[in-house]
Amino acid sequence: MTEGKKSAEESSGEPQVPQAVVSRLSLYLRELQHLVRDGYETTSSTQLGRLLGFTDAQVRKDLAWFGQFGYPGIGYRCAELIAAIKKILGTNQSWNLAIVGMGNLGRALIGYRGFHQQGFEIVAGFDTDPAKIGTHIEGVEVFNLDDAGRIIQEKNIRMAIVAVPAAVAQRVAEALVAAGIEGILNFAPVTLALPKHIHTVGVDLAIELEQLSFSVVSKVPKE
Amino acid sequence: MTEGKKSAEESSGEPQVPQAVVSRLSLYLRELQHLVRDGYETTSSTQLGRLLGFTDAQVRKDLAWFGQFGYPGIGYRCAELIAAIKKILGTNQSWNLAIVGMGNLGRALIGYRGFHQQGFEIVAGFDTDPAKIGTHIEGVEVFNLDDAGRIIQEKNIRMAIVAVPAAVAQRVAEALVAAGIEGILNFAPVTLALPKHIHTVGVDLAIELEQLSFSVVSKVPKE
Repeated sequence: MTEGKKSAEESSGEPQVPQAVVSRLSLYLRELQHLVRDGYETTSSTQLGRLLGFTDAQVRKDLAWFGQFGYPGIGYRCAELIAAIKKILGTNQSWNLAIVGMGNLGRALIGYRGFHQQGFEIVAGFDTDPAKIGTHIEGVEVFNLDDAGRIIQEKNIRMAIVAVPAAVAQRVAEALVAAGIEGILNFAPVTLALPKHIHTVGVDLAIELEQLSFSVVSKVPKE
Repeated sequence: MTEGKKSAEESSGEPQVPQAVVSRLSLYLRELQHLVRDGYETTSSTQLGRLLGFTDAQVRKDLAWFGQFGYPGIGYRCAELIAAIKKILGTNQSWNLAIVGMGNLGRALIGYRGFHQQGFEIVAGFDTDPAKIGTHIEGVEVFNLDDAGRIIQEKNIRMAIVAVPAAVAQRVAEALVAAGIEGILNFAPVTLALPKHIHTVGVDLAIELEQLSFSVVSKVPKE
């Protein structure tokens, strides 16, 4: 789910950071945020690795893609490393997001508090159902998808979440691209064919269940 | 999100497969399923790698954790490799699942077709709201969480999805463990403290958005 389809080697020029490293940055960020919440001011690659089940060498190697963050005899300063990772991930700023598709999933995502905690603000919903257009869900106004171009510009929205049925996902994504969206998080179980400059991340929730069934079948429960 | 907190080195005896390798198995499985749908009978580590942005060596190394699957001069037989991966992931059988929490997210997950496609069948919903107990959502009956022990045994349910607010997630998870559940997919934005023999996978949807914002901020769009 988090390891995407971007090649680590396809770009010319600078070596591209492997997608797996980027996905681990998010995990480091969460653990650092938990450490700060628990009162820690500093940490180490050993502690971070232990919390996540990685070696300390893996932690150092991952962070080394982006710079030198540790201090001899101190380790990492949590607040400083959090700020650095957020800058790398682009979440040192907040992002205005739109969600397309005001079905159960879209409504659930509007209410998902984890987005706000990481700086993602849902500022517009879109649908094509006249009964939904003009309503507010969790305080977020629902607009006609036909008005996406204007709303997305007005509200400074660069990324959108697609939560529509598979059959219409491609058409919706194309409308979003035409409206100026740069990145799409796609929950529809279908691969989107979009221009190369549009960034997409596909969410496949069954992968998480497969990881779970692997654990359940492959490990002998302790007594 | 898919790289969990299990250590690659913690177990005694056989070396444990790294969680990252297991999560890539799901990606290989999806691409193989797409290849079969598109009429391919065989594939290669090069083709699989190219589709996913990995090197062919990475593909071979990942699969080598589990056995020898290729044929000289042929590559991989798609149907055979699909069957092998499904067996490894435990999805060569279908799984009966329960979802706890019949809010927007729970209802969205009941209707999520990606689960059924991979052999996961939602056979029971649970809630504590009397107005919801006894109703059917997408054909799935909603039961009182107090009856979880009986229903989970009757319906042969081993894994459950927790889609309740963070404040009650720990209590719900404990009730599920007491009812005999072995694995929990947790959508609540909170870390569950459970006995070690219970397998948990936490879903943090903000990680996907962070991957997307990284792409949007770090790459220069092509003209």
